[in-house]
Amino acid sequence: MSTDYTVSTYLLQRLKELGVDHLFGVPGDYVLDFLDQVIESPVEWIGTCNELNAGYAADGYARLNGLGGAVVTYGVGGFSILNAVAGAFAEMVPLVLISGAPPGGRRKTGALVHHLVADYERQLEIFRKVTVDAALLDDPATAPQLIDRLLATCVSRKLPVYLELPADMARAVCLPPSAPLATVVRCSDPDSLKACADAVAELINNADYPAILAGIEVSRFGLGQDLLELVEQAELPFATMLSSKSVLPELHPQFIGLYQGGWSRPSVQHQIESADCLLSLGAWMTDLDTGIFSNHIDPQRVIEVGRETVRIGAQLYRQVLPGDLIYELVPRLRTRSYLDLHPGEPRIASGDFVPRITAPLTAARMYEAIHSFLDDSMILLAEPGDAFCAAPEFTIEEAERFIVQSFYSSIGYCTPAALGVGLARPGSRPVVLTGDGAFQMTVQELSTLMRQQIPAVVLLINNDGYLVERMLHEDGPYNDIKMWRYADLPALFNAGTDGIGIRVTTEGELHAALQTAAAEQDKLVLIELCVQKLDCSEGLRRLGATMRAPMPRR
Amino acid sequence: MSTDYTVSTYLLQRLKELGVDHLFGVPGDYVLDFLDQVIESPVEWIGTCNELNAGYAADGYARLNGLGGAVVTYGVGGFSILNAVAGAFAEMVPLVLISGAPPGGRRKTGALVHHLVADYERQLEIFRKVTVDAALLDDPATAPQLIDRLLATCVSRKLPVYLELPADMARAVCLPPSAPLATVVRCSDPDSLKACADAVAELINNADYPAILAGIEVSRFGLGQDLLELVEQAELPFATMLSSKSVLPELHPQFIGLYQGGWSRPSVQHQIESADCLLSLGAWMTDLDTGIFSNHIDPQRVIEVGRETVRIGAQLYRQVLPGDLIYELVPRLRTRSYLDLHPGEPRIASGDFVPRITAPLTAARMYEAIHSFLDDSMILLAEPGDAFCAAPEFTIEEAERFIVQSFYSSIGYCTPAALGVGLARPGSRPVVLTGDGAFQMTVQELSTLMRQQIPAVVLLINNDGYLVERMLHEDGPYNDIKMWRYADLPALFNAGTDGIGIRVTTEGELHAALQTAAAEQDKLVLIELCVQKLDCSEGLRRLGATMRAPMPRR
Repeated sequence: MSTDYTVSTYLLQRLKELGVDHLFGVPGDYVLDFLDQVIESPVEWIGTCNELNAGYAADGYARLNGLGGAVVTYGVGGFSILNAVAGAFAEMVPLVLISGAPPGGRRKTGALVHHLVADYERQLEIFRKVTVDAALLDDPATAPQLIDRLLATCVSRKLPVYLELPADMARAVCLPPSAPLATVVRCSDPDSLKACADAVAELINNADYPAILAGIEVSRFGLGQDLLELVEQAELPFATMLSSKSVLPELHPQFIGLYQGGWSRPSVQHQIESADCLLSLGAWMTDLDTGIFSNHIDPQRVIEVGRETVRIGAQLYRQVLPGDLIYELVPRLRTRSYLDLHPGEPRIASGDFVPRITAPLTAARMYEAIHSFLDDSMILLAEPGDAFCAAPEFTIEEAERFIVQSFYSSIGYCTPAALGVGLARPGSRPVVLTGDGAFQMTVQELSTLMRQQIPAVVLLINNDGYLVERMLHEDGPYNDIKMWRYADLPALFNAGTDGIGIRVTTEGELHAALQTAAAEQDKLVLIELCVQKLDCSEGLRRLGATMRAPMPRR
Repeated sequence: MSTDYTVSTYLLQRLKELGVDHLFGVPGDYVLDFLDQVIESPVEWIGTCNELNAGYAADGYARLNGLGGAVVTYGVGGFSILNAVAGAFAEMVPLVLISGAPPGGRRKTGALVHHLVADYERQLEIFRKVTVDAALLDDPATAPQLIDRLLATCVSRKLPVYLELPADMARAVCLPPSAPLATVVRCSDPDSLKACADAVAELINNADYPAILAGIEVSRFGLGQDLLELVEQAELPFATMLSSKSVLPELHPQFIGLYQGGWSRPSVQHQIESADCLLSLGAWMTDLDTGIFSNHIDPQRVIEVGRETVRIGAQLYRQVLPGDLIYELVPRLRTRSYLDLHPGEPRIASGDFVPRITAPLTAARMYEAIHSFLDDSMILLAEPGDAFCAAPEFTIEEAERFIVQSFYSSIGYCTPAALGVGLARPGSRPVVLTGDGAFQMTVQELSTLMRQQIPAVVLLINNDGYLVERMLHEDGPYNDIKMWRYADLPALFNAGTDGIGIRVTTEGELHAALQTAAAEQDKLVLIELCVQKLDCSEGLRRLGATMRAPMPRR
């Protein structure tokens, strides 16, 4: 039976074993032998309009699925998808990139084949710089162990990997897997873990006003449920961040809100910054997660839980994984009664949006309407721009109902990412909240959403240009873009009855359009939201004011 | 006056001095201070819908203009445009990429700012691998000499360079240029040049059947006119290649045709391969330029002129530049009477296309009609795919009337490149010959063509998928794409009266549409050419047959 296995089928079996049911990409001659085997496999091929978009789609998929994959051809494909892989590397997303390559014979002679840049090592060298591991599969004898190593690393470290598969290796025969893939690459050291858990528990148990800050890594390592158990056992107040929004439920009585440094609501900022013991789990102090470094957390009061280490003041505990620490803490923490320090401050919850029928749409009212539209059956993707500045105000109750690139912030990400989200969670509806500048970047993937019958709701804010840049800096003509007839796109992409485009300029029209979207559960609905050029969320106004202040420009 | 100069104005003045009148790109906060100075400068800002497309546009511009430039923001911008820069590196195109970057203060502390991947050196390290030179401008004292070094290298070596400009450097004061930029980086060695010219002249003068093969570097170094003088002085027969097509006039009596190894017309192949002395100038023996390595040229009969060396058998002449060699050869070559070895073989010239009004469009007839449509006022951009396989059959008489990426072959290149072509040559009309799969990759730049009022003719071959892949390999479902209503795009992109979309399925409709395009000289005209799924040029059929044969797969 072993002769049935090729390097391709081996790789596909491992991917399937790790839950990959879809691969995204664009064909090219160096990768066609591999694609033939994808088609014959239980893994579904999802062709996208270009490679960058395949990468974004695979990234969206990986965030929910635990692993995502993209396939491209050599050179033109590899270098076109690089930005998505770089984004996955920056944001800790477990993405496997498989690139075809010229066959070994060509490589050996250094032949000048199409898609080649400089030499045959160049692409691999570049991908080493934006992945946690990268390998050339040029020998069927070693390919299985390389595949296993890279996939295990990708899954356990939540970082992208790169596999280069020469055309003549795609059908090369190799040994079958001998056992399921062992994906645990690192474990906690038992002694270090116990010592750390004891120390952390003592600090929290003795504190008067402890709090928990759940950061991006809680989300990436899928620790939300475990952390919720801890939070409820100990009755501690907790905050999340934009990058980890929705990892813990936002209607939970102990949820205090999103921490964003000086941009936080005052009660959140006070409770996090004045905590006498802050358990900070996998929080990255990035500019956009800290109100452009306006955070004031006393490091002496922080228990800083990283990917493999825990720091308490000068003491560093090595080889302690956050999941293990949470598990050890649950029985160690004393139960206290949750103390709401700010009982008077109302939570923002979505109420019914009552439109003033003829009132021209404003950003504020638009966001109210959207907030009211969102429910637990949807997954919101908030584009870098005004969308992700407005999103902190939305209440997202269920875990994994919010996708954001709040650190890498590549505009154009959300439309293709919705493709991955829709395929990873067929029971949920992706809602893309994006701006016109971002949307133009990757517009063609709206076509693939409809081709795959993903009933996404695309909320496209048309404010006639790059609004974020207008707000961050004196406006310039470089922020202008061409006005399109966005609402005609579903028809242009030949949606037939699978897609609807609606342009709205008033509250009444928006209300009706959202009702249509709610009624048409099986269709893609694109709503073009026309607002004034400089109208935006409070969040963006605050960001603009901060960035225009002289200090942070340096 | 020196305080008027900033690093940005210095850079802009140098670019202007080198003939750069337009810069292509996408804004982002790290580059806004530079963009403000672009707006104030005589260099025009051309915003594109995304960064990759800006790169392609700048590449198309650079091919005709001698230098082109693109501007992006850090991370998301840099990594998105990388494929275009890699393509310029592969194809020898003088492209300057200017990337914004976080200000020095952030870099010093290693702050986690948006768009950052891993560390502050990563982007520069990656660009070093796809450029001939790259530099970080972090000191206004050294910035002018770095700018001068990189621009001179870019122009003289015809290869891309990368400049990283941190946000706080964009307005940093620096010294003004003290003299015009000296762009000559390398000169020929006089002794080596003389010895080489003597040897080459002797070989050619003593040969019975000498011939000239003009390759891609003749085109890139702008040596077409000089070579034409040589060709006419010596009355030698000459061939070009797909990558150098149109560098010498194709209706010239000494022009024998395009050399493509075994794919050449028999007379061309015979005359080049049986020449007893072949002066090969800057020819790259790439797969697509040699009929997948089906060339049979005896190296003992070749004078191989490279970028800086000339090889005659075992003898290597160093530091001889091709332009200098051509200059030296003109007086040394004896005049002979041009001998047409194949006077009976008719040249293919474009005749009037007489449509069979109701006949469904076929690829063959479509290419006949297009051939007949083309004239010297147009610049044809042939997309990698069936378009560039069909293009060898078109007669292009004038120099610089043909743009092709025949080596790097990045599909989607031509639509954005037409933007650069249109701005570099406002008196000529870009004609994009592309396929549906390629067009979907970069469709949004059609919008920018109309925004800039470039009256391009976009000939979009709609054969329902990736035809090249279907021909190179057993067809698979991964070659299918979504059918769009392409002809509606000008209206969707809000062309108003500046753009026209026409869908044609018969010869009569095609004829009428081409007449409309010819009549509407000031408008962008998109013609969707509907042909059968597997219908293609003879060139692609030959390529498919070659690639499916077992040998070249290895």
